[in-house]
Amino acid sequence: MTHHRPLYGREDLRRLIEPQTIAVVGASATEGSFGRRTLENLAHFGGTVYGINPKYDDILGYRTFPTLSDLPETPDCVIVGVGQKLAETVIKEAADLGIGGAVIYASGYRETGDADGEAAQQRLLDTARSAGLRLAGPNCVGLVNANSRAGMNFMTDCGEMIQGEAGRISLVSQSGALGYALLQGLHRGVSFSKFLACGNSVDIDVADYVSYLAEDPETSTIVCLLEGIADGGRFIEAIRKARRAGKPVIVYKSANSAASSKAALSHTGTLAGSADAYRAAFQRAGAVLVEDFEALMEVAAFFDRNTEGPTGHGVGIMATSGGAGVICADKAEENGLPLPPLGEATTEVLRDVVPGFGSLANPADLTAEVLKNVETFKTSLTAFCDDPAFGAVVVPLTFVHEKTTGIRARYLAEVAGQSSTPLAAVWMNEWLEGPGSRDLDSDESVTIFRSPARCMWTIRQWMDWHARTDWDAEDLTDQGTAGQHPAADLLATHAAGTTALTESAAKEIVARYGIEVPSEQVVAGPDQAVAAAESMGFPVVVKVVSPDILHKSEVGGVRVNLRTAEEVRGAVTGMRERLAKDAPGARIEGYSVQQMAGDGPEILLGARFDPVFGPLVLLGSGGTWVEILKDVKVHLTPIDHQAAAEAVAGMTLARVFDGARGEAPYDVDAIADCIVAFSRLVRDLDGHATEVELNPVRITRDRGPVAVDALIVLAEDREDTTGATDGALPAGQEQEGNVQWASV
Amino acid sequence: MTHHRPLYGREDLRRLIEPQTIAVVGASATEGSFGRRTLENLAHFGGTVYGINPKYDDILGYRTFPTLSDLPETPDCVIVGVGQKLAETVIKEAADLGIGGAVIYASGYRETGDADGEAAQQRLLDTARSAGLRLAGPNCVGLVNANSRAGMNFMTDCGEMIQGEAGRISLVSQSGALGYALLQGLHRGVSFSKFLACGNSVDIDVADYVSYLAEDPETSTIVCLLEGIADGGRFIEAIRKARRAGKPVIVYKSANSAASSKAALSHTGTLAGSADAYRAAFQRAGAVLVEDFEALMEVAAFFDRNTEGPTGHGVGIMATSGGAGVICADKAEENGLPLPPLGEATTEVLRDVVPGFGSLANPADLTAEVLKNVETFKTSLTAFCDDPAFGAVVVPLTFVHEKTTGIRARYLAEVAGQSSTPLAAVWMNEWLEGPGSRDLDSDESVTIFRSPARCMWTIRQWMDWHARTDWDAEDLTDQGTAGQHPAADLLATHAAGTTALTESAAKEIVARYGIEVPSEQVVAGPDQAVAAAESMGFPVVVKVVSPDILHKSEVGGVRVNLRTAEEVRGAVTGMRERLAKDAPGARIEGYSVQQMAGDGPEILLGARFDPVFGPLVLLGSGGTWVEILKDVKVHLTPIDHQAAAEAVAGMTLARVFDGARGEAPYDVDAIADCIVAFSRLVRDLDGHATEVELNPVRITRDRGPVAVDALIVLAEDREDTTGATDGALPAGQEQEGNVQWASV
Repeated sequence: MTHHRPLYGREDLRRLIEPQTIAVVGASATEGSFGRRTLENLAHFGGTVYGINPKYDDILGYRTFPTLSDLPETPDCVIVGVGQKLAETVIKEAADLGIGGAVIYASGYRETGDADGEAAQQRLLDTARSAGLRLAGPNCVGLVNANSRAGMNFMTDCGEMIQGEAGRISLVSQSGALGYALLQGLHRGVSFSKFLACGNSVDIDVADYVSYLAEDPETSTIVCLLEGIADGGRFIEAIRKARRAGKPVIVYKSANSAASSKAALSHTGTLAGSADAYRAAFQRAGAVLVEDFEALMEVAAFFDRNTEGPTGHGVGIMATSGGAGVICADKAEENGLPLPPLGEATTEVLRDVVPGFGSLANPADLTAEVLKNVETFKTSLTAFCDDPAFGAVVVPLTFVHEKTTGIRARYLAEVAGQSSTPLAAVWMNEWLEGPGSRDLDSDESVTIFRSPARCMWTIRQWMDWHARTDWDAEDLTDQGTAGQHPAADLLATHAAGTTALTESAAKEIVARYGIEVPSEQVVAGPDQAVAAAESMGFPVVVKVVSPDILHKSEVGGVRVNLRTAEEVRGAVTGMRERLAKDAPGARIEGYSVQQMAGDGPEILLGARFDPVFGPLVLLGSGGTWVEILKDVKVHLTPIDHQAAAEAVAGMTLARVFDGARGEAPYDVDAIADCIVAFSRLVRDLDGHATEVELNPVRITRDRGPVAVDALIVLAEDREDTTGATDGALPAGQEQEGNVQWASV
Repeated sequence: MTHHRPLYGREDLRRLIEPQTIAVVGASATEGSFGRRTLENLAHFGGTVYGINPKYDDILGYRTFPTLSDLPETPDCVIVGVGQKLAETVIKEAADLGIGGAVIYASGYRETGDADGEAAQQRLLDTARSAGLRLAGPNCVGLVNANSRAGMNFMTDCGEMIQGEAGRISLVSQSGALGYALLQGLHRGVSFSKFLACGNSVDIDVADYVSYLAEDPETSTIVCLLEGIADGGRFIEAIRKARRAGKPVIVYKSANSAASSKAALSHTGTLAGSADAYRAAFQRAGAVLVEDFEALMEVAAFFDRNTEGPTGHGVGIMATSGGAGVICADKAEENGLPLPPLGEATTEVLRDVVPGFGSLANPADLTAEVLKNVETFKTSLTAFCDDPAFGAVVVPLTFVHEKTTGIRARYLAEVAGQSSTPLAAVWMNEWLEGPGSRDLDSDESVTIFRSPARCMWTIRQWMDWHARTDWDAEDLTDQGTAGQHPAADLLATHAAGTTALTESAAKEIVARYGIEVPSEQVVAGPDQAVAAAESMGFPVVVKVVSPDILHKSEVGGVRVNLRTAEEVRGAVTGMRERLAKDAPGARIEGYSVQQMAGDGPEILLGARFDPVFGPLVLLGSGGTWVEILKDVKVHLTPIDHQAAAEAVAGMTLARVFDGARGEAPYDVDAIADCIVAFSRLVRDLDGHATEVELNPVRITRDRGPVAVDALIVLAEDREDTTGATDGALPAGQEQEGNVQWASV
């Protein structure tokens, strides 16, 4: 599933997305046909458009030719508006002619789920790749380049929609319908630069489009509408490339539920990884993950309008209704945004403007009196924007009318255009496209939000995005053992049929990575158990050793805190009797006598081998609290010490580690080291194991983290390590399936 | 602060809100004046309107008289459109004439915060109350009765807005500006029945309006926009009255943050209680609490369209874009809404309609093919609505056009009108008021949401609201000790200056309510401590007893798990030495030797004496976990056994109580009993204490919940209990300050 083709850049996709000459195969004058709609959508395109149709030599005024080969010049891009059968011939012809890119509308490929569709799609790819012809689609609604007014798609009215000034936000979408639904914001004044739909992504996928946009000088902000991706590493690479270019990537990821994952599979033919893994990946790469579809464009607009980071840390709220100011203040607080008091200069300006019953606080209530003289609105607004305490200024708008919001919208735009302080208007009115809203929607300095919560959430994200400097600094080169696999010899001793290892066998592997485990002796019966306990010192734990018993405590196979020889003897004897009764068929390999790890909070370390993001580490509260708190979080691997320390700081237990109730703090560095070691183990076991879990790892005062229990389930069809020499895997294999974090 | 005036009902407010005759004091023809706007807003009113203005006998065609006394008949309602000084005279005149209600626009009253304003407001109230004249305001934008087309307010264009058919949703708002901002939804097709603004609520408050609407036959659903209320009990009473009439109350509560509470105080002059207390109150009364202002009208619309409860438990999603269906499925899952597979009958219908590449699952993807024959959209939709598994059907709309959404909107309305299954359209398009949206906004059967998450959240709330039958069944009569205050004699022994009681004194009070505390002896020194420990049995705890040491463990004043006489002796000796050094001035009253309560999870019980909602109980994880989990929840008192059991079931620790990791469950009934007892204690201490906390209460196997520590801080100005006989408080005092839950 994982392949590491380098990202396409602007040079690769320029002829497809920024063509000078376009040919439309299947050009038609038939009302409502794809061919006709495509020609209509190219009506305002600045370059050359040719029709391809053997029956006509002119369609709607476009010179039309029988085939691509008959054209007087080689077009940069061909739009393939014919069905699946003809499309293959067209792509072959385009490849032969050296055309740069093709948009394929036709469906009937991989998304059908049948072998014929899959094969047809593969033939398209083979033809195109061999000739350097870049494909958008198949099963694709097409592209929009609003800068050149090229509507390279069959979407109704698109040509008309993109007649105005282009914006700086570009949109990449796996779903054509949803992408177009966002694009229709054009009707209320919103503007765009590019709209790039993926369709089946046979050649160009969402990561390639993001990579292209990272280089596109006309794009400032990238919106990404995702259902699922096949290769997590490439997508993260693309996000980082955009970030390096100063461009935020705003992502909405759907298909998070079990039910919708199924629907997604049949829809775009991509694999939906787990929502948590995606979240971890976006966080690590520095993308902004939006939880609601309807929030995407507002979030993107604010980032687009304000490419420089904040100069102040607080938010200033300038309201003309006390109630609206209060709601905005609530949402600011919910998002951890401080509301500093008005500065002296601001207060002085407002004192002249605001009548006695307004509030000179933050939120400020200028009252409806400011309506009486519209100039005072502008004066006050300028004072807010000049206040150095404010990293952003928010103006809620309530009553909507040409005389209020109509006028204020223009002032908001004017002041925003002159000030470097971000300015957001919150439209708190049910007349969604009421007077003034179009001015705000289309302005390129001010941002309009139709939700106070979303406004404050966005400012929070924007401040965090600009504050975060470590997104590219993490050491993401593979910290694995680089061919030196410390436990390869141990794995090799397990027969192909073995699945779950015994706890002892699992701990032996874990210990090879430097993770502490309790000292242990596996013995045959009560007398040896007592001897073992006396040699290692009381108290001890006794656990049954059996490959057939995975959940030992459920059959009475674990006894803890044994303090005397008699207790140890009694434990083993009792256990033997009970197992004979409750687990009669189980092969008993012996009894493990283990030193008790000291007291301390318990964590869980687990693994997930993700088809999209490779081996992942799960970290959360352990022991009894696993089920109660359910606070396990997913982390991408590899994990370096800094990332591990941040992961620990984000745990529910962080306050315990820091020393709750006056206790001394625990050694957080040692916990981070343990996580780094576990991440190496998990990466090494990729391809060999299906499950790896240390639960609990007890954080002790004397020995640091100790893996009190360990579970490793080997893959039935795991790679053979028996041929390895010196404990090393065959060259190359050690990274199989892992995500590579190559720089671009 | 708490007063218990009975709620106004419809008879009380009918002449104000449903007048036949209206007089406008300050009637004017001056463009933009309040008087003129009021007359304009009454242009379509069916009843009689008189102007009051000494200078004219006709204004804009209305017969006008010098004073109210000169009118040919007594109006039901007078709108007072003059300033603060004249308003007082007008109200006196209206009271003398027997007018039913008055709307007062003028400001300059309590909201100014000065004594003159407060006094002027009180005079208005005294005059009106003595005559049975009901007041809306002062400082009020006015009212709307859309059924009679009476725009009794000065809001621009209101008369024009309410010309159409009235709806069934009514709106109560403390903020005039925000209420009107919701009302402006009329511009996009939304409809209303009443809009009732509170202003300063000198006479009628938000609870009275809700009570009126509960009886109003034209209202189905009540929307409430709150900043804060003075009397929690009356508001809860009003919500229950509405619920008894089958009408949901949908609430948005602002002023939740520290900063905004301040702003609210100066804005409407009401006291903002804590957000958690409000949340608990709304939950208990059965109101629907909405977290976002912009969600209010959509939530209300869905409840309004679907007054009968659901017949199926699942949601059916019928999409024409796979991606849109997937997003809706995500949000359904996030809200715990099942997506049952399509029934056989539904599948059969769809099989005829949906081409091969659509998805016959739920969510269903009918694909854009259904566009080709609009009838198939209707056929499929009817099949979904007829599917018995679906308690609601959701149709996401993506691409917006007259030919798609324009036509589908009408079909959606048609099918919704014929089916008893709730039908919601999700408008997933940035063209917010695009083709078809007005039909959906104005239809009275289908509901339009502009957010998939909000749609699914609302369906969840709606199902829960209809499923909940216990909202009125709880025993909410005071379970306090009805004049018999078990600890009054103990309180009386504490001098007026005493604030924090010692742990021992606090536990003595707690024990009187039937809450278990460890057996304890307070001793003077080491020898007696050893004797005490030997008499009660090891292990024991030793704690210092001092009124000057509140946080005992911080100065080494607590030693736990002492297992031998030597350990006890050493503990007391060591404690004495350390305290002499670390807390030299503290009065040491002795050392408390306590039996160790057995092992077990720990909870916290605390109190909050709330000015709005009376004594509240706080319940959460205890001990070390207080700071880590911060999962303390607020509960109204009194708490009966059932409510306490529900509170326990909602705790983070609930899984532990149920028996985590194969352990036996704890006695949850005993925990509930302990909470009920604590709620009695807290109600009895209202007026006497400022803080009450049991932390931790350990849940033991043998003795049930045991209060291991107890804190009671007495109020400096507490009521005197020394005059009480037989431990009873003076008659009446025992309920002072408590919220009464009288039936209406």
